[in-house]
Amino acid sequence: MSKDTRSDANARSRRQVLKAAGLTGVLAAVGGRPAWPQSAHAEAKPENLPPHVADWSKYLGQGVADQPYGKPSKFEAHVVRRDVEWLTAARQSSVNFTPWHELDGIITPNGLCFERHHGGAADVNPSDHRLMLHGLVEKPLVFSMSDILRMPRVNRVYFLECAANSGMEWRGPQLNGCQFTHGMVHNVMYTGVPLKVVLNEAGLKPNAKWLLVEGGDASGMNRSLPIEKALDDCLLAFKMNGEALRPEQGYPLRLVVPGWEGNIWIKWIRRIEVGDKPWLAREETSKYTDLLADGRARRFTFVMDAKSVVTNPSPQAPLRFRGQNVLTGIAWSGRGAITRVDVTLDGGRNWREARIDGPVFERSVTRFYVDFDWQGEELLVQSRCHDSTGYLQPTKSELRAIRGVNSIYHNNGIQTWLVRANGETENVEIS
Amino acid sequence: MSKDTRSDANARSRRQVLKAAGLTGVLAAVGGRPAWPQSAHAEAKPENLPPHVADWSKYLGQGVADQPYGKPSKFEAHVVRRDVEWLTAARQSSVNFTPWHELDGIITPNGLCFERHHGGAADVNPSDHRLMLHGLVEKPLVFSMSDILRMPRVNRVYFLECAANSGMEWRGPQLNGCQFTHGMVHNVMYTGVPLKVVLNEAGLKPNAKWLLVEGGDASGMNRSLPIEKALDDCLLAFKMNGEALRPEQGYPLRLVVPGWEGNIWIKWIRRIEVGDKPWLAREETSKYTDLLADGRARRFTFVMDAKSVVTNPSPQAPLRFRGQNVLTGIAWSGRGAITRVDVTLDGGRNWREARIDGPVFERSVTRFYVDFDWQGEELLVQSRCHDSTGYLQPTKSELRAIRGVNSIYHNNGIQTWLVRANGETENVEIS
Repeated sequence: MSKDTRSDANARSRRQVLKAAGLTGVLAAVGGRPAWPQSAHAEAKPENLPPHVADWSKYLGQGVADQPYGKPSKFEAHVVRRDVEWLTAARQSSVNFTPWHELDGIITPNGLCFERHHGGAADVNPSDHRLMLHGLVEKPLVFSMSDILRMPRVNRVYFLECAANSGMEWRGPQLNGCQFTHGMVHNVMYTGVPLKVVLNEAGLKPNAKWLLVEGGDASGMNRSLPIEKALDDCLLAFKMNGEALRPEQGYPLRLVVPGWEGNIWIKWIRRIEVGDKPWLAREETSKYTDLLADGRARRFTFVMDAKSVVTNPSPQAPLRFRGQNVLTGIAWSGRGAITRVDVTLDGGRNWREARIDGPVFERSVTRFYVDFDWQGEELLVQSRCHDSTGYLQPTKSELRAIRGVNSIYHNNGIQTWLVRANGETENVEIS
Repeated sequence: MSKDTRSDANARSRRQVLKAAGLTGVLAAVGGRPAWPQSAHAEAKPENLPPHVADWSKYLGQGVADQPYGKPSKFEAHVVRRDVEWLTAARQSSVNFTPWHELDGIITPNGLCFERHHGGAADVNPSDHRLMLHGLVEKPLVFSMSDILRMPRVNRVYFLECAANSGMEWRGPQLNGCQFTHGMVHNVMYTGVPLKVVLNEAGLKPNAKWLLVEGGDASGMNRSLPIEKALDDCLLAFKMNGEALRPEQGYPLRLVVPGWEGNIWIKWIRRIEVGDKPWLAREETSKYTDLLADGRARRFTFVMDAKSVVTNPSPQAPLRFRGQNVLTGIAWSGRGAITRVDVTLDGGRNWREARIDGPVFERSVTRFYVDFDWQGEELLVQSRCHDSTGYLQPTKSELRAIRGVNSIYHNNGIQTWLVRANGETENVEIS
């Protein structure tokens, strides 16, 4: 898939076109037409159109015993998680991406939530799963799933974003589609037990300041979690969007750390050790730290700052019709609620406030729309969001001025899409 | 499956047991132990338990390219929609049921939303699908899906309840599990275009009072819809829980009629005719009307009144442990929001207010909990809900006094579960 998701060809000619069109300052573009089928609609049959009676109106359809657990229409077979071969070779320590350009609303269906594993998706038998809690506690404990399921539980909608989401874009446009530039975020309603309930059952000692949280997968994925966050809003979740967690999301039990980078949301969680300082383990030193331009590194960057992206139009979802169109996208902030989203169609000369629709929760994806008229003019589309702390999503230039371009994490810069006269859309940047 | 879902055997002996236990006034019970596997946990292996290292911690798990569209764990294979053979024989004009006893939160996963078809689930190619709008309009129109997808859209969470949900229980306990007594309701976040936007595009004539809404399935399912409701909050929905509608839910386009009985939420919607009076078609005269005791029938019963059920414990989800336990259930009202849920554990002698948790939306399922201690005493569990109009869910006796027992629709009476000393749970009634 490498030639489809990144192209170095034709960069010069594209820039010339852009200049001719008066769109100066475009730094680079990732190009070409979408490489994946937009749908299976090409098979359309005129015999199904009025005044004919369509096939499906003539014959009995599928019965109620045929699919005990349902699945999408065959005409939606293109709506899938996708990986990028050249980006990560090892399939069991790798990532795939959520197809946001095919979604709407704020709920990510469980089958389309992106995956990021460090040792593959563990296949855990819930009867055999145990969570051990030890270290600086009054009473070390081992919990079965039955124990967890008998504790008071709550339901919360939260986004989960991988620290590396949009990370490839630090040095310029790299990936041709919002699925690849922004597909490492999903948004789910969790059911789980507040972590503080479990910690209180064991009893924290006075010098308890940090937790080591560890997964039961083959990588033994682990991170250090400050006790303040653990006692605030973290959950031990066992359900997502109503049903059991999916295996690739940590079945039967995962840690939910609202607003914080995804790698600390330990899946298949098997152990919590309580200590008095951070462990400084591999995944918080060698990895998931941001190397700055001066050679120093930011040690912990827990919170995911406010971010947004236009999902339609985007490279995988070009404009197809002139006239009335729907622009839509998503915004989220690890620090609170999204309060406003602005959209520009002309590269930032004019901004308009987007219409936010659907529930707005703290630390959740929020959906926005701009209903607009398109007459074939080239567009430079961007969105920028504001959160409840007053923070405004920055440009990539503003980010690079402070953080350099060494990191592959924590890029929440404004994304730009170039929509051409024929509706095809590319990943570009504006200086 | 018939012998598992309804049992006439042992009714007398059960009543004797109940009487002996001091639980008088129990009218009938549907009995025996749950017939379906509660889980696949029986396969537990001691070698996976501490201090051993579990299998899944030793070997690499599944990679990110293995499941482009994910599915549940093999240990959740028992969490499926189920039908009841003796209840409806024809599988293409039939129903299956949502396993509420296995769910939590308020979102029903798309794969588990109950199905009700009159001619099977149509397999519609969205490229060929058309929606015709004609009758008392200024300008008859035919819309393609592309036309619909370019109109302003909104996101709303609504329950959909079949008029026949709990209908078998009018005459007494019939079905052994909340999946069967209450499984014809689901709760989904829809994305769609307000119906009024489409109607306004055609222009309603002054005498436009009713719509005939008609599906593209083999049954040509249709109902009459008053214009006031159509212009209020109805949607033409194309997405559910973020992704495209499932085929069995009307892919690519269904009508959403918030709070109203499910059969008017026309799936695969192909035609809207605007008229000045109701059509009085088959599905609103011969079917879906409530025959009263005096031989008259209620013609239209559009709105689904407030209703609740305890999903755990229930016959398919018995209590398994003494001590701390979680009771949970769902409540909904077609007239507004759920404002309060009461739960009794002793057949109505004492009520306590349940804890509502998770988002509360109008005309949406609401989740409630009671965290309680159980020491093996027999319980008679009920829930009753209040909605924002001040309405209180009635008992079945109260309903029967007014409506008789001829109907198989619109039963929103209070459900009773008997929990035995061994935790097994049955569908019973209290006089």
